Amino acid sequence: MAKAGSVFSTGRTSGKLASGELGVLRGIRARAGRANGRVRLGIGDDCALLRLKSGDELAVTTDLSIEGRHFRLDWHTPESVGHRTLARGLSDLAAMGAEPVAAFLSLGLPARLAGTRSGRADEGVESRSWLDRFLDGLLGLAEANGVTLAGGDLAESPVAVADIVLTGAVARGKALLRSGARVGDGIYVTGVLGAAAAELAALSAHPRRFARVRNSGSGEFAHLFPVPRVAQGLRLRRAGLATAAIDISDGLSTELEHLCDESGVAAEIEALRIPIGAGATLEQALHGGEDYELLFTAGAGVPRRIEGVAVTRIGQVVAARHGQAAVTLIAEGGREPLIARGWEHFR
Amino acid sequence: MAKAGSVFSTGRTSGKLASGELGVLRGIRARAGRANGRVRLGIGDDCALLRLKSGDELAVTTDLSIEGRHFRLDWHTPESVGHRTLARGLSDLAAMGAEPVAAFLSLGLPARLAGTRSGRADEGVESRSWLDRFLDGLLGLAEANGVTLAGGDLAESPVAVADIVLTGAVARGKALLRSGARVGDGIYVTGVLGAAAAELAALSAHPRRFARVRNSGSGEFAHLFPVPRVAQGLRLRRAGLATAAIDISDGLSTELEHLCDESGVAAEIEALRIPIGAGATLEQALHGGEDYELLFTAGAGVPRRIEGVAVTRIGQVVAARHGQAAVTLIAEGGREPLIARGWEHFR
Repeated sequence: MAKAGSVFSTGRTSGKLASGELGVLRGIRARAGRANGRVRLGIGDDCALLRLKSGDELAVTTDLSIEGRHFRLDWHTPESVGHRTLARGLSDLAAMGAEPVAAFLSLGLPARLAGTRSGRADEGVESRSWLDRFLDGLLGLAEANGVTLAGGDLAESPVAVADIVLTGAVARGKALLRSGARVGDGIYVTGVLGAAAAELAALSAHPRRFARVRNSGSGEFAHLFPVPRVAQGLRLRRAGLATAAIDISDGLSTELEHLCDESGVAAEIEALRIPIGAGATLEQALHGGEDYELLFTAGAGVPRRIEGVAVTRIGQVVAARHGQAAVTLIAEGGREPLIARGWEHFR
Repeated sequence: MAKAGSVFSTGRTSGKLASGELGVLRGIRARAGRANGRVRLGIGDDCALLRLKSGDELAVTTDLSIEGRHFRLDWHTPESVGHRTLARGLSDLAAMGAEPVAAFLSLGLPARLAGTRSGRADEGVESRSWLDRFLDGLLGLAEANGVTLAGGDLAESPVAVADIVLTGAVARGKALLRSGARVGDGIYVTGVLGAAAAELAALSAHPRRFARVRNSGSGEFAHLFPVPRVAQGLRLRRAGLATAAIDISDGLSTELEHLCDESGVAAEIEALRIPIGAGATLEQALHGGEDYELLFTAGAGVPRRIEGVAVTRIGQVVAARHGQAAVTLIAEGGREPLIARGWEHFR
């Protein structure tokens, strides 16, 4: 973990070191994965040290999660917040076809979440801190994906914030980019869309249900415990099938527009072909965020399943035309421009 | 930049994309450094891509800065906050002897700071946003150190938070670690100590003075515009002089204890030898945070200056003894245990 210096560092009284931040850091260090072939040095020095195989590049992504914006402390269990924090970063690696190497976590927490007891006996849960349970969620998903928690930072904060950094290995020049789509390519998505938005809508109508879902990596809970498509991204990259890829964290309409912008192309998608999650609407499938499925373009030869997950062709890449929307939706009522309506801060 | 998805992504109305987050991101992207030999892909995809020279390892560090904890919006200029955010990460690279490669910035900001106008005509400053001026400070220091801003994330937040990730290259197995100090080594520091704490104390007594200090990389303002010892760390590593190193972000007493803990040794330092910054007290030099000088241990042959900065021997490494303090201060009054009193969160 890096240092937690502050401008307010003068004139404080002494205290036992083990009882504060250092104690928390020691606890995290004890739970994090050990150094291995690629993580030469993990938590405990000024920096971690990563070593790549000759011929590999390192993919790096950061994702910031903020209480009240990305999660609610009164809704989401700590396990869900931890799982979702890591899932966001893993999904970015998946979109590049990168193999996860190491994660770094910068956490800002109110003091009551860092070491005080939050579990309640009547929940049948042992009395463990919010941070401990957050780490259960994060480290459980990390282990399932072969990721070492190799460093980070810790600070006291009036609101809970978690910035996750993911690093991954990818063969030089072979990463899946947003910019490679070509006119004539098919447009594909993994899994189903709208499931996370539908689950969130259902849960938020009865917020007590949030706490009933325990840690799960089964993919059953698309909003609370999303499964990033790491294996599918790796497979796509190694098979050389995809010409461009992006993950659908901010909704299909937004991500497809990003992909078109970066590739200098346009897209037509068909409403009837979009795989809609159980209980979700077309609206949620088009614009709902946090599905963490992969959206990619490819020529011929795309299989119907990749690493156990369904793949659906939803449209095709067409030439961009000046002054026209990047994405056109073909529905029963005809053709209409599909305006990006996924999440955007500072709108 | 990575995605800024949110759980609150359903049921929003549409908006012009260029006016919100995407517009802000485009502005940052336009100002960030371009891809180069080591940064193969910068802002604009799901991940950045870094390429290392054969035989190099990648050092990675993250540092979280939070409004009200690490800076105050009513005290620090945006330029100072941006400069200090990057300086914290660069100082961690310096402590490992790593050469800076790329930075990643996750920013959570209240909407008024992201795009509204904060400059006042009576300050003689053009009307630019807080974010623009923050980037002035951050990118100015980045350019001076050859660092590309290669990615990050952006979100709306009730308080300003900035998490900086720094990556650096270091020859395999050659990084300066905290764990290499040997009994008999000398203990050295670069520059002077306590200057940042003294400057902060002087400024906070008259907070209007904060705004009078304009962007400066001269090292004149140790608290507002600290100069991380990147060149000195590189030189130390390449010369093979140091057996262990750490940066003094949290105060000498705290950092020396960390170094002793990781090396399994103890330390004796002499009060009269400690280089005290102009206007600072011994107390500030021992415990004041954010000096961002390097603390290292070495055998013989340490020069008096490294890359233009003074180096002072302040003590020596001795054997650890069970039940005794790791650090002993030798002063006029005799020997006393030096208890770590640097900054620690959650104490």
